[in-house]
Amino acid sequence: MATAPSVSYSMTVRLEVPASGTAVSQLTTAVESHGGSVTGLDVTASGHEKLRIDVTIAATSTAHADEIVAQLRTIEGVVLGKVSDRTFLMHLGGKIEMASKHPIRNRDDLSMIYTPGVARVCMAIAENPEDARRLTIKRNTVAVVTDGSAVLGLGNIGPMAAMPVMEGKAALFKRFADIDAWPICLDTQDTDEIVAIVKAIAPGFAGINLEDISAPRCFEIEARLREALDIPVFHDDQHGTAIVVLAALTNALRVVGKGIGDVRVVMSGAGAAGTAILKLLIAAGVKHAVVADIHGVVHAGREDLVDAAPGTPLRWIADNTNPEGVTGTLKQAVVGADVFIGVSAPNLLGAEDVAAMAEGAIVFALANPDPEVDPAAARQTAAVVATGRSDFPNQINNVLVFPGVFRGLLDAQSRTVNTEMMLAAASALADVVTEDELNPNYIIPSVFNDKVAGAVAGAVRNAAKAAGAGVAPGGR
Amino acid sequence: MATAPSVSYSMTVRLEVPASGTAVSQLTTAVESHGGSVTGLDVTASGHEKLRIDVTIAATSTAHADEIVAQLRTIEGVVLGKVSDRTFLMHLGGKIEMASKHPIRNRDDLSMIYTPGVARVCMAIAENPEDARRLTIKRNTVAVVTDGSAVLGLGNIGPMAAMPVMEGKAALFKRFADIDAWPICLDTQDTDEIVAIVKAIAPGFAGINLEDISAPRCFEIEARLREALDIPVFHDDQHGTAIVVLAALTNALRVVGKGIGDVRVVMSGAGAAGTAILKLLIAAGVKHAVVADIHGVVHAGREDLVDAAPGTPLRWIADNTNPEGVTGTLKQAVVGADVFIGVSAPNLLGAEDVAAMAEGAIVFALANPDPEVDPAAARQTAAVVATGRSDFPNQINNVLVFPGVFRGLLDAQSRTVNTEMMLAAASALADVVTEDELNPNYIIPSVFNDKVAGAVAGAVRNAAKAAGAGVAPGGR
Repeated sequence: MATAPSVSYSMTVRLEVPASGTAVSQLTTAVESHGGSVTGLDVTASGHEKLRIDVTIAATSTAHADEIVAQLRTIEGVVLGKVSDRTFLMHLGGKIEMASKHPIRNRDDLSMIYTPGVARVCMAIAENPEDARRLTIKRNTVAVVTDGSAVLGLGNIGPMAAMPVMEGKAALFKRFADIDAWPICLDTQDTDEIVAIVKAIAPGFAGINLEDISAPRCFEIEARLREALDIPVFHDDQHGTAIVVLAALTNALRVVGKGIGDVRVVMSGAGAAGTAILKLLIAAGVKHAVVADIHGVVHAGREDLVDAAPGTPLRWIADNTNPEGVTGTLKQAVVGADVFIGVSAPNLLGAEDVAAMAEGAIVFALANPDPEVDPAAARQTAAVVATGRSDFPNQINNVLVFPGVFRGLLDAQSRTVNTEMMLAAASALADVVTEDELNPNYIIPSVFNDKVAGAVAGAVRNAAKAAGAGVAPGGR
Repeated sequence: MATAPSVSYSMTVRLEVPASGTAVSQLTTAVESHGGSVTGLDVTASGHEKLRIDVTIAATSTAHADEIVAQLRTIEGVVLGKVSDRTFLMHLGGKIEMASKHPIRNRDDLSMIYTPGVARVCMAIAENPEDARRLTIKRNTVAVVTDGSAVLGLGNIGPMAAMPVMEGKAALFKRFADIDAWPICLDTQDTDEIVAIVKAIAPGFAGINLEDISAPRCFEIEARLREALDIPVFHDDQHGTAIVVLAALTNALRVVGKGIGDVRVVMSGAGAAGTAILKLLIAAGVKHAVVADIHGVVHAGREDLVDAAPGTPLRWIADNTNPEGVTGTLKQAVVGADVFIGVSAPNLLGAEDVAAMAEGAIVFALANPDPEVDPAAARQTAAVVATGRSDFPNQINNVLVFPGVFRGLLDAQSRTVNTEMMLAAASALADVVTEDELNPNYIIPSVFNDKVAGAVAGAVRNAAKAAGAGVAPGGR
């Protein structure tokens, strides 16, 4: 699968070149002939003999970028200066900050923002705890909590290395839903400790976004926190993914003209995302689902399941899918299936497997960065193909969901988040794509479509209010 | 003790008054004759018959403000509209927010700030944890942690009611030292839990500011966290107060021409602040100190101390003060003393007690809002008087200290904070007042003196570097 040069592997190279001659045009040629792409070229200083040029180059990987720079060195008369990685430059010193809403110019400001004036505000909240949502940042503030155990596709890299993701998430919360989120990266992977810590820090937040916590701990942590807290707890890797998948599937089924209760869905992956997707699809009306994991199709008679306790994730899957008791491999299961949804590992299926699916097949190959099946190969026979990648049509991206979901929850002052709210979010997201716009290459809107967050937020807010999930008078 | 109208009890009243006649002048007269003060008067709509006026009034208390509003009602022709409390208005929706440092305009921005570009930044930190201080917000970020057990003088009002103070503190960190602080208000007052939680959240922060945690738990929490963490832990109620008191005492002693090793110091209060002040004064050279608490002078033979374990705060005081074994009351102890420092309760001493102190007496009466002795009465015989109040000269205010201390610690990437750094901070703060400026009414600079934070930060940074307290290569 060919990969295009990407801005995520982009760098700026400072060069000195002779003012006359062909050095400048040779630069561009050298970059392009080695598979890179020149995305910017600024002359930052010019003289009679020399030019100083900042050339910005997109490559396909770090190694590729290094290779291109090595090529530039070989051009006659070119002196190589500083090489700056644009992504790293953007992360220098971190990506977010704290800002005051009011200036503190003089003693009067100080005496209202801090002592002695602040004491009256504190006492108002002590007397009526619900006032915390009026007189503090609580109402608009979300904690982005991780233990660093399952960061992106990178695995258990720990809380400090997870920070760049959590900061990015906070930046996205602000950009798409005007929510103030702060990263809380925990130096423990003990379930009991994580539950105790999140319970304890909750007073200053109106919602908890769990992030990149590995399965199966994430299930227990979320369930116990939902039970304990009076603010919504949402594990984005599970439910954000599930909502966007359901929205995309809803529109894909419109494209092929099939009903959600009629299709046979085969899933690959029984981790956090897979389990949440499965549960939400069943809640939305899917009746025929089969799940495969690394050991093949999940069925009640499988050796590793005979002794599994009721309620464990895999046992739940066995009890709620595969009514025909299909056994065997993923490849066997997809034969004749209407829908394939992969949240697992790269390159598990080939073009021939997609060809063996039913007419009007829908393929969501979401493993990142390399999908379960090459999307170009899948497109040869499938009616609709979606991936997690930004360089193919139909990107399944959580950014479409979590800002709007939390905006709706916060606006409703919701104490919880439930399946009805998630179904409402998925439906609203699907509906952002109009009948006129809908086609096999446009089943899901762009992340930058400015209708998305508002539509999702409105649907979640209404569902929360309908469920009476708002804060009770006098409650917290 | 008369209190002047204050902006912390300030409100804006919307009124409709007849356009002609004396109603407007009657308004001002009514406010002033009832002890209030008009600090603003805006005509927000004007017609031939009616004016709409927003009058801003400062009062001395909430009850006083209500009383003034009641008077305005009685003026002929005046219709009272909305009454807005200016302090509460400033707190609506909270006082701080999260801000992104970079715009997210398009897919390129997204792919560098978030996936897939962020993955390379995460891996860089996983490979070299020290890079977290370069590539995340850690280096400039402080957690303001409380359990709400001793908030201002309000007592144990809990974590939610403590939020306005912690937000205000975060705003001050930004205003005076460009530090990004975030409030963490804990729904537990269990020492072990607090220690475990703060340890766990530490990866995302470069410093911990403990705030408004009651004694004696605050001593153990701080000590255990300092032992466990590789970032500085600073309980501001203790050490911020101690540093500013030492700075003020240093300059007060210059005013009266006495040496710190020669004076007899009598303290009232053996809580968090009192204990920390005492320890720092001893480290700075005080040799003759006597401490009184609610049961009178602390001495080794006191009934409640005979069985006190070594290391408990009161036992430490008994072991390190009062070498002559003085017994009795606070009033007895201050006879002949050079310095009185109160961090305890209102109105414990009278003018006659101050008159009985030594020639050139120094009185720091820091109980808030009502000092241990009326400062006006103390001034009759004392050479230097300071309080915690903003409406008297020589305000002893932690805002002079904590922003600069943390700025210095963060700049040095210090892993700890120790007595030498605190002594350096006090010395730098004292030195902001020049020989030419020094006088009995100016022993400590104003909070808005723009030399303060930089001077304190520089001293702390140098002390931290001299102590080798910076991050070790490869460390965190």
